[in-house]
Amino acid sequence: MSLVPLIEYADATPAVRAIYDDIMQTRGTDWVNNFWKALAHDPATLERLWNTVKQVMGPGTPGGLDPLVKELIYVAVSATNGCEYCTYSHTASARKKGMTDAMLMELLAVVGLANETNRLANGLRMPVDDAYRAVKP
Amino acid sequence: MSLVPLIEYADATPAVRAIYDDIMQTRGTDWVNNFWKALAHDPATLERLWNTVKQVMGPGTPGGLDPLVKELIYVAVSATNGCEYCTYSHTASARKKGMTDAMLMELLAVVGLANETNRLANGLRMPVDDAYRAVKP
Amino acid sequence: MSLVPLIEYADATPAVRAIYDDIMQTRGTDWVNNFWKALAHDPATLERLWNTVKQVMGPGTPGGLDPLVKELIYVAVSATNGCEYCTYSHTASARKKGMTDAMLMELLAVVGLANETNRLANGLRMPVDDAYRAVKP
Amino acid sequence: MSLVPLIEYADATPAVRAIYDDIMQTRGTDWVNNFWKALAHDPATLERLWNTVKQVMGPGTPGGLDPLVKELIYVAVSATNGCEYCTYSHTASARKKGMTDAMLMELLAVVGLANETNRLANGLRMPVDDAYRAVKP
Amino acid sequence: MSLVPLIEYADATPAVRAIYDDIMQTRGTDWVNNFWKALAHDPATLERLWNTVKQVMGPGTPGGLDPLVKELIYVAVSATNGCEYCTYSHTASARKKGMTDAMLMELLAVVGLANETNRLANGLRMPVDDAYRAVKP
Amino acid sequence: MSLVPLIEYADATPAVRAIYDDIMQTRGTDWVNNFWKALAHDPATLERLWNTVKQVMGPGTPGGLDPLVKELIYVAVSATNGCEYCTYSHTASARKKGMTDAMLMELLAVVGLANETNRLANGLRMPVDDAYRAVKP
Repeated sequence: MSLVPLIEYADATPAVRAIYDDIMQTRGTDWVNNFWKALAHDPATLERLWNTVKQVMGPGTPGGLDPLVKELIYVAVSATNGCEYCTYSHTASARKKGMTDAMLMELLAVVGLANETNRLANGLRMPVDDAYRAVKP
Repeated sequence: MSLVPLIEYADATPAVRAIYDDIMQTRGTDWVNNFWKALAHDPATLERLWNTVKQVMGPGTPGGLDPLVKELIYVAVSATNGCEYCTYSHTASARKKGMTDAMLMELLAVVGLANETNRLANGLRMPVDDAYRAVKP
Repeated sequence: MSLVPLIEYADATPAVRAIYDDIMQTRGTDWVNNFWKALAHDPATLERLWNTVKQVMGPGTPGGLDPLVKELIYVAVSATNGCEYCTYSHTASARKKGMTDAMLMELLAVVGLANETNRLANGLRMPVDDAYRAVKP
Repeated sequence: MSLVPLIEYADATPAVRAIYDDIMQTRGTDWVNNFWKALAHDPATLERLWNTVKQVMGPGTPGGLDPLVKELIYVAVSATNGCEYCTYSHTASARKKGMTDAMLMELLAVVGLANETNRLANGLRMPVDDAYRAVKP
Repeated sequence: MSLVPLIEYADATPAVRAIYDDIMQTRGTDWVNNFWKALAHDPATLERLWNTVKQVMGPGTPGGLDPLVKELIYVAVSATNGCEYCTYSHTASARKKGMTDAMLMELLAVVGLANETNRLANGLRMPVDDAYRAVKP
Repeated sequence: MSLVPLIEYADATPAVRAIYDDIMQTRGTDWVNNFWKALAHDPATLERLWNTVKQVMGPGTPGGLDPLVKELIYVAVSATNGCEYCTYSHTASARKKGMTDAMLMELLAVVGLANETNRLANGLRMPVDDAYRAVKP
């Protein structure tokens, strides 16, 4: 069903295996999900993107956002874009980091509301208030 | 510039004024932003939407998400949709609730990453892993 | 500000002028809006698209949808996509065909609601009910 | 497959059952579709959204739009966003309210055309004509 | 599963058959894909859209873009929009015109990057540099 | 107007200046565009993203896509998403790499067509043909 064949660990080059190993070690799991197995056709993108995910989504980043909060934002974007794979995989990640059913429902209530008001604003085209235009209100 | 004239407080019906008053009191401000002044042409939608915003975005909701976290999610959706008005207005709201420049940058790094991987998944169409399909992993 | 120069009537080739003339005659106006003046750089696309607009948006089409209803649908899509030019131009067209302020507000209430529930469905991924899957329910 | 378990009538709280009853009675059906069974995890959102749907999509609203026209707009937004669930469910609703195959084809011809011209305008960035900027052309 | 029944060659009107024949002849295949079989419910749209595809996607167009490059652009848009059908069908077309796995991976790396930076720009709202505003830099 | 102040060269840290220098040297220009000046608030993202742009958009990548073709794809995505900043900046980049007006018009004709057919497919939900599902047709 995938548009390129998935590359399993047994068939991967040493460089790809090293990234698969790092994915499993970082996550404390014994399997790699299909997203990375498809990306492995382009080892440079695989490496770049996995390093980005570790840098952006992990703890200890300068903005101080909690890793769970970052997963909630990830799910919000994925639901907005209608990306099936990303919604399933990042909802699973968010649950692993502590998201409950009640938090998921509340998250989606915000996502739904934001998508609603985005279109009211896009359709009515009211000017942005001067107070909001200032760089630092 | 707006596609319907904005309804100022002085020109509003008593029912609309009551909602304007509630907006200002809830937020501790002395002005109403243009979004609501345009919506006031449809008082039923104005009332419904303001009540929804209060219910969904305020503190004390069952999922327990912090109001600041909910504003971050709102900004994430608005940046994804490219809604200019909503990006300005909810970035201002998020700052008022404590968002720093570093948090905004980190938020957008997550938003950018999610939009990137969403398209890789949409383009490669790898099957959703069985482990993610389960209702509760 | 446009990414290609706009081609004014005085500077247009006879083939482009003929389409400008048809646009003005069909609409009963004495001016051509900027969308067509930019498209005129690609006369084949200009001609194809103007003929499509006449065919799809006019009266007497087989589905029997009223031209005003079709303009409302056009505005709904443009507000959803956040296209500034299209929102302004098709709101103007819809007003010319009879859309009132109350209709615009009601249209956008539906658009907002649809965008909200679209994201709740995308985020919760409930299966499509069998009754809806059937070709003709 | 749903990201939260669906809540069936037999397992629902009295408050949720009351809304399920209202959904079935309003629609003259003896079943509730999966969208509401997933939303039932958040009874406040379930109630708010069902009341909104009744208010916005029903007959007798101030803008005077026909309920069928409103369903067509709903389908237009859902097809634009690529929401599978919403496209199936609201196409079914629209058929129930009288939409024929010919009307669906014509609706989608408008939706397709609007999505095409939205991108031509977004890519060429021609300025909005002054005549369209005026609040009431 | 389709929302209108697919119209097979055997059941098609002579006018629809003529377009099916042209599709197969132009492509050198002995089958017609489902997209056109669904569109056949609206023969005017079927004819218009097939003629457009031939005009826009074929060789020898005035801009001089290679047909393979145009298929890559088609896949980029379809992945961005999350359109499942179009991603599958145009990836197949692109392969037929010479796209390799390495080209597909590289194409999607660009698509992912563009979607990422689009959201950073939409979220930070930096002003467009004057040098970019000029019609012809 | 930007949601964070732009960081000019004179005010930048040595680490940020080093990236600004690399941007100018790589491009053969004597100025840095606003996108990077806003990103400079998050030096890790600035560095990661600039390195990604160099890796993905430059010549000599494994898929062998021409840098101009990659810019065309970038513009296609930006027009589809309606990102104003990205449309202006990448149209300028594409012109610098050789894009003519005729190529831009042809590019947008493909983008428009793809956005149109994406919605027809999303709205009609015809099943993906088996021939397209195969990994390697």
